[in-house]
Amino acid sequence: MTRPDHIHRELHEQIARFSTFGATKAGGIHRPEATAANGEARDALVAWLRESGFEVRIDAIGNIFGLAGIAGPEAPWLLTGSHVDSQPNGGRLDGTYGVIASVIAARELRQRLAAPAMNLAVVAWTNEEGARFQPSVLGSQAYVGAIDTDWALAREDRDGITVRAALEAIGHLGTDQPAPRPAAYVELHIECGPLLERAGRRLAAFDRWWGCRKLEIRFEGVPAHTGPTPMAERKDALLAAAGVITELRQLVDMAPPGELHTSVGRIEALPNSPNVVPSTVTIFAELRSADPAVLETAFARTEALIEAEATRAGVGWSFARDELRRPGRFAPGLQRLANEVATGLGEPAMRLDTIAAHDAVPMARLCPSIVVATPSIGGICHSPLEDTRPEDLALGLDLLTGMLERLLVEGPDLAKAGETAS
Amino acid sequence: MTRPDHIHRELHEQIARFSTFGATKAGGIHRPEATAANGEARDALVAWLRESGFEVRIDAIGNIFGLAGIAGPEAPWLLTGSHVDSQPNGGRLDGTYGVIASVIAARELRQRLAAPAMNLAVVAWTNEEGARFQPSVLGSQAYVGAIDTDWALAREDRDGITVRAALEAIGHLGTDQPAPRPAAYVELHIECGPLLERAGRRLAAFDRWWGCRKLEIRFEGVPAHTGPTPMAERKDALLAAAGVITELRQLVDMAPPGELHTSVGRIEALPNSPNVVPSTVTIFAELRSADPAVLETAFARTEALIEAEATRAGVGWSFARDELRRPGRFAPGLQRLANEVATGLGEPAMRLDTIAAHDAVPMARLCPSIVVATPSIGGICHSPLEDTRPEDLALGLDLLTGMLERLLVEGPDLAKAGETAS
Repeated sequence: MTRPDHIHRELHEQIARFSTFGATKAGGIHRPEATAANGEARDALVAWLRESGFEVRIDAIGNIFGLAGIAGPEAPWLLTGSHVDSQPNGGRLDGTYGVIASVIAARELRQRLAAPAMNLAVVAWTNEEGARFQPSVLGSQAYVGAIDTDWALAREDRDGITVRAALEAIGHLGTDQPAPRPAAYVELHIECGPLLERAGRRLAAFDRWWGCRKLEIRFEGVPAHTGPTPMAERKDALLAAAGVITELRQLVDMAPPGELHTSVGRIEALPNSPNVVPSTVTIFAELRSADPAVLETAFARTEALIEAEATRAGVGWSFARDELRRPGRFAPGLQRLANEVATGLGEPAMRLDTIAAHDAVPMARLCPSIVVATPSIGGICHSPLEDTRPEDLALGLDLLTGMLERLLVEGPDLAKAGETAS
Repeated sequence: MTRPDHIHRELHEQIARFSTFGATKAGGIHRPEATAANGEARDALVAWLRESGFEVRIDAIGNIFGLAGIAGPEAPWLLTGSHVDSQPNGGRLDGTYGVIASVIAARELRQRLAAPAMNLAVVAWTNEEGARFQPSVLGSQAYVGAIDTDWALAREDRDGITVRAALEAIGHLGTDQPAPRPAAYVELHIECGPLLERAGRRLAAFDRWWGCRKLEIRFEGVPAHTGPTPMAERKDALLAAAGVITELRQLVDMAPPGELHTSVGRIEALPNSPNVVPSTVTIFAELRSADPAVLETAFARTEALIEAEATRAGVGWSFARDELRRPGRFAPGLQRLANEVATGLGEPAMRLDTIAAHDAVPMARLCPSIVVATPSIGGICHSPLEDTRPEDLALGLDLLTGMLERLLVEGPDLAKAGETAS
């Protein structure tokens, strides 16, 4: 079941084309959600879907769907896709690869299959990255009803611009009727980690997704002159934040090896002037684990260490946001299917955890869902250096196409049975 | 030598008027250099100087001078003033009080003195605060030749806007011929510290100014996904910065009590996304001491701790800026004069260090210079809560007027003799 050369060629050409939208000097893309560059990528996707014969619908949170009702109005739907937003100065494959592969696979299958058991749709979700707007996986969460769409539209970036205003500005605040609910969801993504490469493997089927506690921790001190204000009288919000950042890293070493990841990726300080003691500092922290007990212990320790550091610096603190994504498992039937198709391609699927979130996580609340993955060179992700070997990108497309084909032919029950990925 | 009531009333009225330019809800002002609000304050000052009969000149770095050649073209000049830029969400007195008092005092003296020995000029210096643009005391440093004016004009704010462009936008990139060089400089300021209030005193003459090492420390790590990237492989620039912030505070406790102040007031992280390991983080640190040896030891320790923290986090580092202001002393003759006039007002001047920088520090390279000060309630400064009792503000004006009068009458040699402030 090797794809014809021209299809692989188109995959690489489309990746190169989409890489021009928001291209950075460093070789990556800067395409956070609903920026002008993101709008260009969205417009290109919409045009490509229409040219390819799909009915395009943009929903109220800006998710773009391309529908092909190839099995008739009563038949269930199979959905595949990913996202075209990026991290600031991020990589060109994260998300976009899955969307492009989905369009190519779906177009081929709608042409090739005479009497499928399912209809087929492609999706590009809004604000998967959670870089410009929090929370992440915003569009898919709104789609499955995990969050309210109006609430999602009211989220603000650091300049106070709402999702609604930003989508409106690029013409992607949709008014189309909602897309049909799928009976299964398949997403292709780069691994965003080093494990496939280190194991010498080329394909993965994700089994567990790690849980994540995302915290915005706000420290409130008092502005004061950094010169004459006596040291003992300062209420320095940045000093408290710095202590917390240091200790959050140390939590990792208190958990079982490899079972806890912590990070602080973003910090905002006010007034942020060189000669004023910082009065308000907010840090965006994450605790990640596949084990709910590890996550719970880490969170309890986090609360205690914040309290200790805030007290030491003489400042107040609060959670401006506290969001818990519980750990879980993707559909065993889709894991089995992924492994069968991968084995047929000569590259059995490695069973991995995904520590990163994907839109398939919220989707798993709605229907059997999975993410399958190709290697990331050096494990690099969220970086302009992010890359995957061309032959692995092509193999991922073949895996996705094969999985979609089996589902379209055999129907949604295929997604439901036991597991054999290894 | 008590001022007539109407003069004190005008002082309070002008402070209230200038407080409207960039007024914040918190009761302070937001008037960083060459913002629109700063332009309003500058325009109001220029108009007021002209109405008061001064010849206005704005020089190439935007310093505003009001000249009164009352002693004739051959006579030496006496300069007095401060600044009208503010910290972000700063206080309404820092700088502006001194400028307003200078205009009122100068106007009164030029009307009152028949045959002075010196000419008289008022100045409002550009970018004293160093909040929007670094370095601080930019305008006075350019004026005395400590820095090159073209270099000063090329300094950029965090959005890449230069001093030149910002001054041009508000119409304060001057083309007037340079103001005459003064033979003495006197500045009135709020204390910006708690010592006068705690001692129950109302006037200060600053003796020493503390030295300051201002560092922009840049850490360079590698962007990576905060989820799947193995903890041991992260090169987290924020983790290194956090360690340095914590340890810089601890340096204070290694120095003789009260002799070292350290701070980090500003931090910039990139890409500053919640789910990307920070790859570039810059912190703006200050080490302050009156003792060159303490400062030198602190700097050596700072270099060592940065190296240790950067190594531990696996990131590179460099000084993006390393600026040393050496400690020094204001003119003994002006200290003696300040104390004589203050004693005459019934409130002998307390001899204090200034830990904050003032434009009088660069000016001291050019001519005998001094800063005299009134109390800050609660020692608060660089805050919207910054305040001084009205009667202390009035007393400060009287001190300034008295010092200027003695200098104008007796001539510049008065600034040069021994000291007796206590």
